[in-house]
Amino acid sequence: MSTKISTKVLPGFMELLPAEQRLFDAMKQSIQASYESFGFMAIDTPAIERAEALLAKAGGETEKQIYQFSKGDNELALRFDLTVPLARYVSDHYNDLVFPFRRYHIAKVYRGEKPQKGRFREFYQCDIDIIGHNNLSLINDAEILAVIYDVFSNLQLPRFMVRISNRKLISGLLESFSLSEKATDVMRVIDKIEKIGAAKVRAELSALGLSTDSSDKILDFVAIKGAPNEVLAALEALQINSSVFAAGLAELKTVIAGVKSFALPETSYGLDLSIARGLDYYTGTVYETVLLDYEQIGSICSGGRYDNLADTYSSQKLPGVGISIGLTRLFSQLLELGLIKTQAASPARVLIIPLDEVAIASALNTGRSLRSHKIATEIYFEEAKLKTKLTYASRLGIRYVVLIGADEIVGNFLTVKDMESGQQSQLNTDTLIAQLS
Amino acid sequence: MSTKISTKVLPGFMELLPAEQRLFDAMKQSIQASYESFGFMAIDTPAIERAEALLAKAGGETEKQIYQFSKGDNELALRFDLTVPLARYVSDHYNDLVFPFRRYHIAKVYRGEKPQKGRFREFYQCDIDIIGHNNLSLINDAEILAVIYDVFSNLQLPRFMVRISNRKLISGLLESFSLSEKATDVMRVIDKIEKIGAAKVRAELSALGLSTDSSDKILDFVAIKGAPNEVLAALEALQINSSVFAAGLAELKTVIAGVKSFALPETSYGLDLSIARGLDYYTGTVYETVLLDYEQIGSICSGGRYDNLADTYSSQKLPGVGISIGLTRLFSQLLELGLIKTQAASPARVLIIPLDEVAIASALNTGRSLRSHKIATEIYFEEAKLKTKLTYASRLGIRYVVLIGADEIVGNFLTVKDMESGQQSQLNTDTLIAQLS
Repeated sequence: MSTKISTKVLPGFMELLPAEQRLFDAMKQSIQASYESFGFMAIDTPAIERAEALLAKAGGETEKQIYQFSKGDNELALRFDLTVPLARYVSDHYNDLVFPFRRYHIAKVYRGEKPQKGRFREFYQCDIDIIGHNNLSLINDAEILAVIYDVFSNLQLPRFMVRISNRKLISGLLESFSLSEKATDVMRVIDKIEKIGAAKVRAELSALGLSTDSSDKILDFVAIKGAPNEVLAALEALQINSSVFAAGLAELKTVIAGVKSFALPETSYGLDLSIARGLDYYTGTVYETVLLDYEQIGSICSGGRYDNLADTYSSQKLPGVGISIGLTRLFSQLLELGLIKTQAASPARVLIIPLDEVAIASALNTGRSLRSHKIATEIYFEEAKLKTKLTYASRLGIRYVVLIGADEIVGNFLTVKDMESGQQSQLNTDTLIAQLS
Repeated sequence: MSTKISTKVLPGFMELLPAEQRLFDAMKQSIQASYESFGFMAIDTPAIERAEALLAKAGGETEKQIYQFSKGDNELALRFDLTVPLARYVSDHYNDLVFPFRRYHIAKVYRGEKPQKGRFREFYQCDIDIIGHNNLSLINDAEILAVIYDVFSNLQLPRFMVRISNRKLISGLLESFSLSEKATDVMRVIDKIEKIGAAKVRAELSALGLSTDSSDKILDFVAIKGAPNEVLAALEALQINSSVFAAGLAELKTVIAGVKSFALPETSYGLDLSIARGLDYYTGTVYETVLLDYEQIGSICSGGRYDNLADTYSSQKLPGVGISIGLTRLFSQLLELGLIKTQAASPARVLIIPLDEVAIASALNTGRSLRSHKIATEIYFEEAKLKTKLTYASRLGIRYVVLIGADEIVGNFLTVKDMESGQQSQLNTDTLIAQLS
């Protein structure tokens, strides 16, 4: 009994007390409800995949982070995102799915990265994607924005904004400078502009071998700001000689026109040409979402459009658009900033305390009645002082305590204590049910 | 593009199509609602634990099944149940928890066992436990039964029965024969009586070195059947000379008296002295639950009482009682037996089809109105023949299709097609909302 095994969770793993867990679950449930309200369907894939299936899509840093192991003859790995499993799922079940395939997936993913503040090795992602077969209308890119708006409005987060761009713009710009082969590197640099500033971006572009003239134009491009129509006009005015740029501009115009018909508040979205998303994965529209008063958190919801979801696994052409919310990180940041607050730990709204053995049957009856009206009810069975029992209710955040003893049984009433107001009243069961329904 | 990676899930892993997934999720949600209605609080622990923490509790077959791996300096493993993580959780957060601690945990666990029909390597467990500090009233053992009843009634499963016993009875019986050191082996044999029959049990007991007389008495004991009061009387009449037996009988009487006050249908539970649960873990009440018309499935919900949850991790005495539902296995069996049936794949109740570009804005407005009344609504944006769009709705199980074109916009109505009845009607949005609310 003396040498006990450590009971701490491993560094980089989040484990919550019940009140925090309840708050986390409520956020997760709210996101799920938003997704379902737009007709997204749930899928659930194994957390363990064939290592080769994951490694085919991972590269560089991600590959190092993958938890890999073998069992029997199989080389296995834990998923590091929900997009690779989606690609595998759609490829495998292609014949049984109906397109466009709108799926959501809320589940844990695993990345064995260096633990640091705000980074987790196990975390929830909440993803939606709309997958087309051969084609997928650009109006979907606009609808995704409406879903993001719905999600964060329902979560009642402070002022947020979805920033939109299109990766073809910067690709086209680089093409017009004959710098296409450096597109990925250049985008990685541009993506850091908010963090490191224009001067450092210029230096890094120079290190990549770009001329001062090209760097200037790129920085001018990235600096275009304003209302969506102004930005679109400024992009037009650049007169970039690139078919890719022209395609990106046309897509962006269509998406912005689409977004307008969704009638979202104009403060909730804007064009931001500086977002390019590090991932090579996206080929068109890209999104990032920030809390305007807490930009230090970074993007709380990112995603974009891709030409082909599953070229590693399937010969079908499956264009798609999707987003991901890293809920574990978002939750921990919001909690730390005091932007969300725990409330009750218990789902029970009523705690029934039988005052003696004889009252137990009556307590059970009352509990059954309350539950049959969807009022979650716990009964306190242990021997303890009344004060201990009331403390139990208040520590768990159970608002109503029902006391049942000989007087209550004889008089056919309940003594109900509202733990919030401290008020005590005598009610019959039906009245209590009516009050709580 | 020619050599594609396998997209099949690994053997022993379950992956569902959207309609099946929706059915699975509905069952999971129903179980969760039952658990919460009794005031159980959710926890969520990492799927990855320190290997030493899991191995301390595993033994024999279980240990071989554990997925183990290392990452950096850490020896890691995937949890194989939710009880060991609970023990670690309660030990770690002991000072922040309030006792009795009622928690539920619905999550995946991992066992790398040989894949076979009805066995999974990744599966959901749905657990509840009530953990006391030093003491825990036996009425909790009765309440657990009420929770099981609530869960399976709400799932609308066919005739089920919870079988109850107390491990102290058989332990005491063996003690009275001075066979205590063989208790674990004997219980493992008895536990198989339904599968292999009395004759084979007798042979196996003999192989363990039990005398014919002792085996006869054990089989007589196990054969006691009848209504709870009859069984309790028969046990009393055995006059077993063992304090452990006496304690078990007293506990069982208390639990049965408790169950009666929960007013469950008498057909929903019964005493069954043959259940002894292979696990050494339990020290008192034990439960198994069977579908009476499908006993071949085996127990669909098992559990019991234990003296001390966390002796590996904590010096606190934490008695508890709990149950576990292996949902993945239960779901796959029910589906195979045709006892549950998939319905809609999509959560959307309405599919809006704009008949031309101009109708999109009106479609979006209507969608927004429906969603604001909690009616999940999808809009079909792709170009396709109307027949393709209607087929899409019926394949996803979306019951109502709303058509909006020039006529509808001018006339300010919606054309609503009920895909189930085939009936088509012209309604305004408010009427549709009223009908679907």
